[in-house]
Amino acid sequence: MTNPTAAMLVIGDEILSGRTRDANMHHLAGQLTEHGIDLREVRVVSDDRDAIINAVRALSEAYDTVFTSGGIGPTHDDITADCIAAAFGDGIGVRADAAALLQAHYDRNGQEFNEARQRMARIPDSATLIDNPVSVAPGFTLKNVHVMAGVPSVFQAMVASVLPTLTGGAPLPSESYRINRGEGDIAGPLGDLAKAYPDLSIGSYPFQKDGKYGANIVIRGQDGAMVAAALSALKDAFPE
Amino acid sequence: MTNPTAAMLVIGDEILSGRTRDANMHHLAGQLTEHGIDLREVRVVSDDRDAIINAVRALSEAYDTVFTSGGIGPTHDDITADCIAAAFGDGIGVRADAAALLQAHYDRNGQEFNEARQRMARIPDSATLIDNPVSVAPGFTLKNVHVMAGVPSVFQAMVASVLPTLTGGAPLPSESYRINRGEGDIAGPLGDLAKAYPDLSIGSYPFQKDGKYGANIVIRGQDGAMVAAALSALKDAFPE
Repeated sequence: MTNPTAAMLVIGDEILSGRTRDANMHHLAGQLTEHGIDLREVRVVSDDRDAIINAVRALSEAYDTVFTSGGIGPTHDDITADCIAAAFGDGIGVRADAAALLQAHYDRNGQEFNEARQRMARIPDSATLIDNPVSVAPGFTLKNVHVMAGVPSVFQAMVASVLPTLTGGAPLPSESYRINRGEGDIAGPLGDLAKAYPDLSIGSYPFQKDGKYGANIVIRGQDGAMVAAALSALKDAFPE
Repeated sequence: MTNPTAAMLVIGDEILSGRTRDANMHHLAGQLTEHGIDLREVRVVSDDRDAIINAVRALSEAYDTVFTSGGIGPTHDDITADCIAAAFGDGIGVRADAAALLQAHYDRNGQEFNEARQRMARIPDSATLIDNPVSVAPGFTLKNVHVMAGVPSVFQAMVASVLPTLTGGAPLPSESYRINRGEGDIAGPLGDLAKAYPDLSIGSYPFQKDGKYGANIVIRGQDGAMVAAALSALKDAFPE
C-alpha cells in the first residue's frame, strides 16, 4: 500500500476527563479514507505544553501529514499555536494577515477586537492560514502539520478547506459482509481466507446485538478484482 | 495533583478507517475521573504488531496504569495478546485456567471449543485474568497493563472488574458554569481569574449552538473551598 500516511493529535483536557465525547477523530477518519490517505495513529493529550510539543514532533516525523484539533481559541488555556511554533523552532506573534481577517469580522458585527480576540491572530511566522468559513478565526499549516479548531463545526469546515490541497491516493477498494455467527465459528475459515489472499487486508469486527453475536468482515486491497474474488469465497463459506 | 496517572491504547483498524466510532475512550475517561485517576493520554493504533508493541512499552513506562481495548478475539487479526507478551518479553500460550473457563462455557451452550476459540485462551504466562461476565473470554493484566476487549459491552464489564482493584485518588472537586457569550468576551476576565487562583485548573470549553457562541467554564482543584471561591468570583464577573 503506497497511500500517504497521516496522524491526528487531539488536544483537550475535556476529552480526557470524560466531560466531552470527541467527534473530530471519527469525522477526520472517514474523510481521510475517502481521500485515499491512511490514518495510522491518533493521540489525545491534555492542554499541557510538553505533552503537545513532544507529540507533535513525534507524529510529524513518523507520518506524511498531521492534523491537530483543539486549543486555538482566545482563552488562557489555548496554547496550541505557541506549542506548535516551539515544536518547530518558529517565531510567533499576532500576524497582520490573521488580524485583518478578524478585525473586519468584528467590525461587521459591531464587536470589539479586544486583546483576547487578538490572541486568535497569534500564528507562527512561517505558517500559512487555513480558511475558517464558520467563525473566521483561522487555523494554520506549519511544515506538515495542520492546526485546526476543536469545536466540531469549525473543525469540519477547516478539514474541508485543507483536504483539497493534499495529494491523496486511490481510495482502497473494499467490501464488507455481515455474518450473524460468533467469531469463534468464523475464525477458522476466515484465517484460511486470509492465508489464501496474503495481499489483502481482511478484518473481522465483532458486534453483539440483542444478546446475539456476529461480525462484520471487511476486505481491502489495491486490486479490486482480487477483493471481489475473496468476497465471493467468503460468501460461499458463510451463505446468508 | 498527586492522583495516579493512566493512559489508554485503542487497537483497531476499524476506528482509524472511520468505519466505527470509538465508544470505549469516553466510557473509560468518565470512570477514571470518578475513581480519582488522571487519564493523561490516549493513543489509537492499527492492528499492526510493531505499532502495538511500541505504544504499549511507551505508555507503560510513562504512566502508572495502562488500559488497552481491542484485538483479543478468536480471529487471525486479533494479535493484541501476543504483542503484549512480546512487549514485556513474556511467554504466551493457551493457558489452562483460561481454557477451563471457556471449555465450561461452550459445554453449557453445546458449542464446540474449537481451535479458533482456543485462541481466546492465549494469555501471557505471567498475566492474571480479568473477569468477563458478559461473554466469558477473559482479559488479562500484565505488569501495569490491563488488556480488555473492544466490543463496548464487554469492555465496560471488564473496566468494572478492574477498577475496584486500583488505588484511586480523591476525585478532584470541580464546578462548572455556562456562559452564553463568545470566548472573546470571556477570555480577559477569565485569564485574570486563572492568575488570581494559580493552584486551580480553569478550563474554557467553547460551544456553538443555534448560531450562538458560548463556553462552559470548568474549575478544578484539590481545595474545595478555593474552587467555590473562584466559582463565586466567576459568577460575579458574568452574572446569569
